[in-house]
Amino acid sequence: MKVIDKVQEMQNIVNTHRKRGERIVCVPTMGYFHDGHLSLMKLAQEYGDVVIVTLFVNPTQFGPNEDFERYPRDFQRDYELASSIGVDYLFAPTVEEMYPDGYSTKIIVNKFTDKFEGLKRAGHFDGVATVVTKIFNATKPNVAIFGQKDLQQTLVVRQLVKDLLFDIDIVIAPTVRESDGLAMSSRNVYLSREEREVASQIYRALQKGLDAINKGITNRDVISSYVQKHLSKFPQLTVDYVAVVNSENFEEPAEFVPGENVAILVAVYLGKTRLIDNIITKIP
Amino acid sequence: MKVIDKVQEMQNIVNTHRKRGERIVCVPTMGYFHDGHLSLMKLAQEYGDVVIVTLFVNPTQFGPNEDFERYPRDFQRDYELASSIGVDYLFAPTVEEMYPDGYSTKIIVNKFTDKFEGLKRAGHFDGVATVVTKIFNATKPNVAIFGQKDLQQTLVVRQLVKDLLFDIDIVIAPTVRESDGLAMSSRNVYLSREEREVASQIYRALQKGLDAINKGITNRDVISSYVQKHLSKFPQLTVDYVAVVNSENFEEPAEFVPGENVAILVAVYLGKTRLIDNIITKIP
Repeated sequence: MKVIDKVQEMQNIVNTHRKRGERIVCVPTMGYFHDGHLSLMKLAQEYGDVVIVTLFVNPTQFGPNEDFERYPRDFQRDYELASSIGVDYLFAPTVEEMYPDGYSTKIIVNKFTDKFEGLKRAGHFDGVATVVTKIFNATKPNVAIFGQKDLQQTLVVRQLVKDLLFDIDIVIAPTVRESDGLAMSSRNVYLSREEREVASQIYRALQKGLDAINKGITNRDVISSYVQKHLSKFPQLTVDYVAVVNSENFEEPAEFVPGENVAILVAVYLGKTRLIDNIITKIP
Repeated sequence: MKVIDKVQEMQNIVNTHRKRGERIVCVPTMGYFHDGHLSLMKLAQEYGDVVIVTLFVNPTQFGPNEDFERYPRDFQRDYELASSIGVDYLFAPTVEEMYPDGYSTKIIVNKFTDKFEGLKRAGHFDGVATVVTKIFNATKPNVAIFGQKDLQQTLVVRQLVKDLLFDIDIVIAPTVRESDGLAMSSRNVYLSREEREVASQIYRALQKGLDAINKGITNRDVISSYVQKHLSKFPQLTVDYVAVVNSENFEEPAEFVPGENVAILVAVYLGKTRLIDNIITKIP
């Protein structure tokens, strides 16, 4: 596995691979790899000939009071993990390389961005749209893989790709979970042992919503109340939002209809740590 | 010359050329070709193997009270002219193809866009940045060629390319003029015979500014006053702005220094027709 830290060098490499007719698959990440990341990397190998994992903690998608500075980083460990999977290139640019002096351009996606993560994290999706565009231009992939855990992000990225005419297929990979159901996240490392135990209740709460749907409940508020009720049992958890939405357009009808694809979304605080998770199902 | 009107087909074609190792040169235009456009197309042939001319009157770069509807269009004539030059592909998508239903993304370049054309034409450069990005993604060029007549646009496009990490070289081609000095523009067709005669005074006014600089004048206001004074002699001309700027950063120092590259910019109305022009020189 080759480590590349310069945009121009990365582009020269992909140009050479593309001339050979090889398919490039890109996995954008912020590093501090867990099994979720590794599953994206393995999936990437099925979609093309050359796998590029990008490792960049993007400052523009963090709010001023968020955890950019303390976001966990461990390059040596990430290098070894990606290398062990058989990744071809680890593209790990500096902030200066990605946002050179005088940087002045912003990309705004005005769809799927006005609620949930977009509302709670002002400017977050502008930062995501902008860095994803830059990563796409630096790695010129045929396919890019994103994780379902950041579900709203996947809708924003698909919209971005469609609107800006990127010739890139977007693949969404399922969330990988710990044995107790907690969605894998680099931020789980922030949790104290006690918080870590309670964190598994996020998935349990999602399951309560799923159970409600499978019992035939189609009213959004009622489904949501099952999730809320479970979370409220754990005083260590502060709910940021619970939402039940059409998973394809993030609309929130009062009643869902049979066959509709629905996502249950949860964001909570455990101490200072903010965790999100979701589950997708179909109304029976 | 092949005419392409679908983004996906255009991308498939460039992918094939790129696999062969051929260099793609793109000339973005709004059509209604004049000798200025044709000179860009000829120049394009020197920069690569495959020349794509894009023909798209982009609605998002026109203000609500501007001339999008009446902007001149003549596809058959454009087809014949581009074909006669030896252009390989004329990419002429519909508005629906470029801005499909639900289109929601905007690109904002916050540099070089707050004055002159950006100030007078609100939202103009957002529309330019967005459509240029889309054209780049549809045609995936190695080189793109823009005309110097839209000087501020060339700075915005260069900034966009730098900021979004596009692997594209930007070439700026000199303004082509009528025999009396009027810069070629598709909008010249709007002019009445009388307005057309007076229009040549724009270039004469720029020459007055150039003469002042060559006489050793370095004070911005004084250089500008020479241009203004000439234009004021023609009551048919309404000055929108005259500006003298550093041509590389569009800053406006009170005094220019020897060796500094300077642009004189003019925008005027002749009746309802708005025309712009500029000239670049070096302070002796």
